[in-house]
Amino acid sequence: MEKRAVISEFLGTLLLVFFAVGSAVLCVEYIGTLGIALAFGFTLLALAYTLGPISGCHVNPAVTLGMLVARRIDVRTAVTYWVAQLVGGIVGAALLFLLAKQVPGLRTSGSFGSNGYGGRSAVGINIGGAFLAELVLTFLLVFVVLGVTHRVAVTGFDGLPIGIALAVIHLVGIPLTGTSVNPARSLGPALFAGGGALSQLWLFIVAPMVGGALAALVHQVTHPVGEERVIADKASAA
Amino acid sequence: MEKRAVISEFLGTLLLVFFAVGSAVLCVEYIGTLGIALAFGFTLLALAYTLGPISGCHVNPAVTLGMLVARRIDVRTAVTYWVAQLVGGIVGAALLFLLAKQVPGLRTSGSFGSNGYGGRSAVGINIGGAFLAELVLTFLLVFVVLGVTHRVAVTGFDGLPIGIALAVIHLVGIPLTGTSVNPARSLGPALFAGGGALSQLWLFIVAPMVGGALAALVHQVTHPVGEERVIADKASAA
Amino acid sequence: MEKRAVISEFLGTLLLVFFAVGSAVLCVEYIGTLGIALAFGFTLLALAYTLGPISGCHVNPAVTLGMLVARRIDVRTAVTYWVAQLVGGIVGAALLFLLAKQVPGLRTSGSFGSNGYGGRSAVGINIGGAFLAELVLTFLLVFVVLGVTHRVAVTGFDGLPIGIALAVIHLVGIPLTGTSVNPARSLGPALFAGGGALSQLWLFIVAPMVGGALAALVHQVTHPVGEERVIADKASAA
Amino acid sequence: MEKRAVISEFLGTLLLVFFAVGSAVLCVEYIGTLGIALAFGFTLLALAYTLGPISGCHVNPAVTLGMLVARRIDVRTAVTYWVAQLVGGIVGAALLFLLAKQVPGLRTSGSFGSNGYGGRSAVGINIGGAFLAELVLTFLLVFVVLGVTHRVAVTGFDGLPIGIALAVIHLVGIPLTGTSVNPARSLGPALFAGGGALSQLWLFIVAPMVGGALAALVHQVTHPVGEERVIADKASAA
Repeated sequence: MEKRAVISEFLGTLLLVFFAVGSAVLCVEYIGTLGIALAFGFTLLALAYTLGPISGCHVNPAVTLGMLVARRIDVRTAVTYWVAQLVGGIVGAALLFLLAKQVPGLRTSGSFGSNGYGGRSAVGINIGGAFLAELVLTFLLVFVVLGVTHRVAVTGFDGLPIGIALAVIHLVGIPLTGTSVNPARSLGPALFAGGGALSQLWLFIVAPMVGGALAALVHQVTHPVGEERVIADKASAA
Repeated sequence: MEKRAVISEFLGTLLLVFFAVGSAVLCVEYIGTLGIALAFGFTLLALAYTLGPISGCHVNPAVTLGMLVARRIDVRTAVTYWVAQLVGGIVGAALLFLLAKQVPGLRTSGSFGSNGYGGRSAVGINIGGAFLAELVLTFLLVFVVLGVTHRVAVTGFDGLPIGIALAVIHLVGIPLTGTSVNPARSLGPALFAGGGALSQLWLFIVAPMVGGALAALVHQVTHPVGEERVIADKASAA
Repeated sequence: MEKRAVISEFLGTLLLVFFAVGSAVLCVEYIGTLGIALAFGFTLLALAYTLGPISGCHVNPAVTLGMLVARRIDVRTAVTYWVAQLVGGIVGAALLFLLAKQVPGLRTSGSFGSNGYGGRSAVGINIGGAFLAELVLTFLLVFVVLGVTHRVAVTGFDGLPIGIALAVIHLVGIPLTGTSVNPARSLGPALFAGGGALSQLWLFIVAPMVGGALAALVHQVTHPVGEERVIADKASAA
Repeated sequence: MEKRAVISEFLGTLLLVFFAVGSAVLCVEYIGTLGIALAFGFTLLALAYTLGPISGCHVNPAVTLGMLVARRIDVRTAVTYWVAQLVGGIVGAALLFLLAKQVPGLRTSGSFGSNGYGGRSAVGINIGGAFLAELVLTFLLVFVVLGVTHRVAVTGFDGLPIGIALAVIHLVGIPLTGTSVNPARSLGPALFAGGGALSQLWLFIVAPMVGGALAALVHQVTHPVGEERVIADKASAA
């Protein structure tokens, strides 16, 4: 089961980056910010129902950190997931890069779906604003993930609110930072974008992780957590 | 449980205002009216599945009034929820204000996502029209909430129709009044917008409350309410 | 129960016309064809989960005819529903007309969300094309309604596909005829639009009814119908 | 049951082509790429809940191939489904062609919703890129279908992620190739478009089939498949 879970995290992150970031890189002129936001949310929704019973479908180091802080997974699983997610994000970005090269005139250098602040933000948000935005945006995602996979939630109604939450997070965040809320989603594209994307990358790793950890702490205030806890996202696979 | 519920209402309203009103304040030029409408509906959908088992996820004084009129909660709970929601809305607006200040050139004075009629309405709707609109728009929201959390409804299928209802309410109401249907969503932004937003605020408190109470009365005609009533929105947490 | 069901059909059709047709009358310049299509689908989705357990939430004479042909309801119920739906549609249009009058400069004469062909169609579709379009569009709606409320379907997963089907029906049909697929949705607005809307009204009554009846006949080929049939849409209320 | 399933595949593919391709042929100027993407996803979502319990609602030869490779169906069923799907797609395109002829000035020659690469792609993607795109896009669809109908998935939560996956696949793929991921969806329109659509048709048959088969192979790595396998998509009909 462990092996399937790791492959699931690798493949899920690969597909999330390829499809969601791909919608931005390949189609922004056709679908706009609204379309890209839906692409992120819809991809995660579909993956959550496909891979959720296998690995929990974190496909995001900040979600995995939240699960760890909330004591739903152990450190060994978390580290394994992180590696799988980061590698998956890089391979997904590489596959997207390969595809983008087949479109004449498409500019694959520059942003390539990477995140940014200051001059690399559509609205020019400053560094402090970008950190605050990513922290709060990630807080919502991880708080939703932890809540809807908690034992008080109704089985099955997890992928829907998780995907929809990611969509609204992008509706708010795309003009600000391009929306990371997921270090693995930021790393891959930044490697191919290079330059400013790489020098600003740290923020899109640190802020989401802080937001995810904070969400787990608040979750333990709002939701009863104790001995009777279950790995809710695996319950359906029993 | 009581304490968790109050925190849940506070936090839920905070997040609703930050994300949904935030989409309007920060991103209207990128996502348009359709995107803002989806942001409101999607945020509520995600919160409903996350916080519904804890507090019912009213995050709206008009919904709480409807629940009170329909005898699903007692007066003490209602008053506590109202305070938590109003404070949550103010804190959410403050957090949004703080973030908006980090975006160079963003005008945070003026509307700041507040509601309005007359000269403060996109289509210039008059005061009577605004009252009628808010009343009917809120009627739908509270009528849906009461119906889908009623014991005749299928467990789990509550957050979806509630969130989707809020989306369509905004598709109709944004050009008219900016859509309140929620006094807590109106209060916070109005405090930061000041001026006309404050002098018109009463309408966006009174009309939604009347609409919510009316919905509860009609709900008791369409849906069987009696001794056997259960707090449907807490049933899933049992 | 019978009385609640009739009120449910009246109120549901009223709300469908007010919100969905209202999005077109009041907000087309803000939300476009896509927004209007979502408004129709989202309103029906929310109503289906709210009123489905009470009356089945037909809110559409063509759906009721399909239910009658498929022998899910008897003639007396069908006739009662038809009257409730038609009256509900008229009252909903009247309420919308009252609201629209409060918006300065809004043209409430002319189309007022009514359906049309020829010179009253956005793309100028001819009368035969309009009839064919309405027939096939309604076929999908009623075929979906009958299928997802059939005993082979999973309980609860009815309002979602029904609402989503109505959205896609409007994505295709709005440019053609404004999309009726529902005589009650066409009658109310036509009474207020007057003129051509009234003289073309017959098509938006006849074609949807033919499409609905045809869907019920095909449904009986694709889905097993026999003695063991149950009123699936009321099963959840048991 | 066999007969109902074949009719279901025929009718489902007919309706998918008529509505989804129809949204592109008839309404692209009104709903844009985003609207067309939603039309594809929404149509499949509605059909999945309507016909899923009857035939599994593949309505796509690549999905059927994936089901065959994953040993969920036998060769005889697969071949029968393929014929039903291809004929359904042709009849759906013919019905759409008939309707389009009733709209004055609508150009029914040329693309007619067919797929293409090179000069027939909106962004001019080359043949290798088109093949890679269709392969990966179809991989996601079939991987999701196999995962959410697997026994580890929660009953009922299949049509939602399947439809939503098709929507995001179109958000990414429409500017590239018009998005096939379904040979039956490509064949019908190509017959009416003629010319380049027919000479490029092979790619939109081969690439989706390769992507579907690959998805089934990877699915067997991520998901446990063995003696205890069940035809998950028929379980709900039991």
